[in-house]
Amino acid sequence: MDFVRLDRADTVVTATRSLSPDSEVERIAIRSAIPSGHKVATQAMAAGDPVRKYAQIIGYASCDILPGDHVHTHNVAFRNTDTDYEFSTDLRAVAPAATQDYFMGYRRENGTVGTRNYLAIVTSVNCSATAARMIADHFTADVLAEYPNVDGVAAFVHGTGCGMADSGDGFEALQRVMWGYAKHPNHAGVLMVGLGCEMNQIDWLLEAYGLKHSETFQTMNIQKVAGLRQTVELGIAKIKAMLPIANQARREQCPASDLMVALQCGGSDAWSGVTANPALGYACDLLTAQGATGVLAETPEIYGAEHLLTRRAVTPAVGERLLGLIKWWEDYTARNNGSMDNNPSPGNKAGGLTTILEKSLGAAAKGGTSPLTGVYKYAEPVRSRGFTFMDSPGYDPASVTGQIAGGCNLVCFTTGRGSAFGSKPAPTIKVATNSEMAKRMSEDMDIDAGEILSKGVSVEQKGREIYEMFLRVASGEVTKSEAQGLGDYEFVPWQIGAVM
Amino acid sequence: MDFVRLDRADTVVTATRSLSPDSEVERIAIRSAIPSGHKVATQAMAAGDPVRKYAQIIGYASCDILPGDHVHTHNVAFRNTDTDYEFSTDLRAVAPAATQDYFMGYRRENGTVGTRNYLAIVTSVNCSATAARMIADHFTADVLAEYPNVDGVAAFVHGTGCGMADSGDGFEALQRVMWGYAKHPNHAGVLMVGLGCEMNQIDWLLEAYGLKHSETFQTMNIQKVAGLRQTVELGIAKIKAMLPIANQARREQCPASDLMVALQCGGSDAWSGVTANPALGYACDLLTAQGATGVLAETPEIYGAEHLLTRRAVTPAVGERLLGLIKWWEDYTARNNGSMDNNPSPGNKAGGLTTILEKSLGAAAKGGTSPLTGVYKYAEPVRSRGFTFMDSPGYDPASVTGQIAGGCNLVCFTTGRGSAFGSKPAPTIKVATNSEMAKRMSEDMDIDAGEILSKGVSVEQKGREIYEMFLRVASGEVTKSEAQGLGDYEFVPWQIGAVM
Ligand SMILES: [Ca+2]
Ligand SMILES: [Ca+2]
Ligand SMILES: [Ca+2]
Ligand SMILES: [Ca+2]
Ligand SMILES: [Ca+2]
Repeated sequence: MDFVRLDRADTVVTATRSLSPDSEVERIAIRSAIPSGHKVATQAMAAGDPVRKYAQIIGYASCDILPGDHVHTHNVAFRNTDTDYEFSTDLRAVAPAATQDYFMGYRRENGTVGTRNYLAIVTSVNCSATAARMIADHFTADVLAEYPNVDGVAAFVHGTGCGMADSGDGFEALQRVMWGYAKHPNHAGVLMVGLGCEMNQIDWLLEAYGLKHSETFQTMNIQKVAGLRQTVELGIAKIKAMLPIANQARREQCPASDLMVALQCGGSDAWSGVTANPALGYACDLLTAQGATGVLAETPEIYGAEHLLTRRAVTPAVGERLLGLIKWWEDYTARNNGSMDNNPSPGNKAGGLTTILEKSLGAAAKGGTSPLTGVYKYAEPVRSRGFTFMDSPGYDPASVTGQIAGGCNLVCFTTGRGSAFGSKPAPTIKVATNSEMAKRMSEDMDIDAGEILSKGVSVEQKGREIYEMFLRVASGEVTKSEAQGLGDYEFVPWQIGAVM
Repeated sequence: MDFVRLDRADTVVTATRSLSPDSEVERIAIRSAIPSGHKVATQAMAAGDPVRKYAQIIGYASCDILPGDHVHTHNVAFRNTDTDYEFSTDLRAVAPAATQDYFMGYRRENGTVGTRNYLAIVTSVNCSATAARMIADHFTADVLAEYPNVDGVAAFVHGTGCGMADSGDGFEALQRVMWGYAKHPNHAGVLMVGLGCEMNQIDWLLEAYGLKHSETFQTMNIQKVAGLRQTVELGIAKIKAMLPIANQARREQCPASDLMVALQCGGSDAWSGVTANPALGYACDLLTAQGATGVLAETPEIYGAEHLLTRRAVTPAVGERLLGLIKWWEDYTARNNGSMDNNPSPGNKAGGLTTILEKSLGAAAKGGTSPLTGVYKYAEPVRSRGFTFMDSPGYDPASVTGQIAGGCNLVCFTTGRGSAFGSKPAPTIKVATNSEMAKRMSEDMDIDAGEILSKGVSVEQKGREIYEMFLRVASGEVTKSEAQGLGDYEFVPWQIGAVM
């Protein structure tokens, strides 16, 4: 196929390869060469008329546009719509699925459901990173062979935890991450390891969140234990004691509603918003129909499209929370001598993206069309079902770390340029936006959404394929990134404030 | 000994254990119980008179003080001296050492000298972290046995490199870190590994710093190589090709002037400013006498004592550079909704620290008494000899990463609470401030500066012991942290701006 139409209401289609001036789209002769990824008008638009893509107004004709015209920055102007926010005016009812789907998960005592069964070593500060790695490294495949129901001993190590303010956004975000990993349903047991004098005190966390020591929740610090070697030895002993308990876990049939999927993209290309993201959006709608949860994130990447999400908010309060995040980000970037200017870069424009809205719509497409049921802080426990939003940077590891901390038990990651991302304890499914990259990086890509263009597969078909893989991976099927052993170095808590 | 006098000009001494009211210091009967770490007046001070410690005015008597009085917040007031900066008014000439000292180092082609001989895998972004670790993990002790002159293959992996502004302080700092590690004299060869679409582009770095590919300087990215497995295989092949070259390096006699030592403290206690830091300061003076270099850092921790460093600046321009850093930090913390208020915390005060100046003097004591020859940005190449200052946070791994990037081939780290810090490629020597901790963490501490109190060893003797260990470790002696295998997870580039 030479072009793709994203919605019947659209006034443009997108060329999927370079079109020469003698080509046609939808029986309309094009009027100039159209580069791959660029838009062609499929109807006349007078100056001032809206230009629609994704069934949304992405801009307004800045001069008269004829059918077959190249539609881009030379004939489209963008008008800011920030001031006319609407709330809950675009609520599309979710039809419950005809059949209830199931997967085989680990149901924990508190009712949450895991898709993997790890023991975790969570560090409070970089100063305990080596200790945590050494403890985890002890548990080789050989040592773990006795415990076939345990997926591994994972160390969550990072670069922060001290040299930071002892309150405020950054401190609270780090505490939420730690709490989220401590309580994650993919963890059968947790050992927290600190140094002792760090700002991010483990004891403060226990107090703040009411965590209690138990057979499968232990804490220790290097200063108290008196040195690295003893800490590693004691840590190994503590994990050894947890292994038989963790090994008792068994997969059982759980409804699909127990899935919580992190919706993520990284290394986007011109096709992200056309293939993989809409397909993932459809998969998210299928999740919602099952009563499951999809968690969109990456606040800077939906900037400019937030007024569409507020219309989908189930209540004005949910919409207002989203606007609160947008305001926070404008302040955060300004304070850091930057700006939220997410306008298409020269590279984006060369790829065919005309306005900020078109760009953000491409990213937001991962969230499908269901009502927005909740808006969460970074790493905050996601408590509503359906389509939700979590504040986070766009930066993949930092964003996914927040989503997993919030309770996601699966991650779905779309990529155009290609990525070797993997995550623990929740596994990542990677979806390629184009078939060329999917072939080139076939050992990294789980699904080729480029087939929407290269083979004419529909967005809905591809979305169902993604959704069905959610059920299989949640039941234990190994993803490409898991097969390659990824996920040990991608834990990156979002570091918000000054490093001091 | 029950107390310690830090300078003959001081009007106070510091109790080294709790003193009961019937005790004496310097034949003066004390007038009340003095807690350990607190100060006793050794002469009368009228209200308004200066209170001296470290030969510096740490505050002014707020009422009349008698010999034997407890001197603390109840009778000392602090006056801000920010406004009367002096430049180059306290330049103490450095007498060249009577004998030239030597160590056995690796002299590189460009004239710099290494103390270790590593191959390095440097990552541009977290997205290539697992690839870098997998490449390094291939080179086990068995594989490296053929190359006895190579200390190891080290992977430098971090959490940043994308989701950041493409210019400004944060971007430039990260580029300097990458450049510094790429050119570090402890590296016989370097492989840089990226993803491909990250903000911190390897190619931009090569261009900005004029780095050229060679047999021992190679770069690659996952997207171009087409996936994780191929990247790891190619990376292993590239490192294999460097090993025989790296193995040709031989230690040769080098003058002590080729040493550049990172002066660092972390997990400080009441004794840091009394034992380990002054001893390290004396070692720094010995380095300076040899024409070698000491690099003090941790800008927030010298805050309040910067007017003493400007007096030691060899030129007003050097002093002004330091004041520029102070202003930058005031802005940085204010922008991040914090402040540079480094006033003694309740814990500090309980430990006996009365004013911000007293606290900062304790940290600055690591820098000895020699003239300040240069002030550098974070991770900037340190080009002057003698006592220098580099901008950095106090946070240990971030600060040391900058110091090593700046060219330090040794790190000396004082600690009171205890730390299991280690670093690559430059090894870390850890100095305990108190004998109790030194014993408790004996496998982590290289030197016990607590002996200044517990055994009456002089600051000068302990400083010489530290300096002599510099020469031995620079020649290949294994530090405690090296023996324990630390240094693979402590690479933490300072992340300055917004994560987006
Ligand atoms: Ca993205
Ligand atoms: Ca992302
Ligand atoms: Ca994975
Ligand atoms: Ca410090
Ligand atoms: Ca420090």
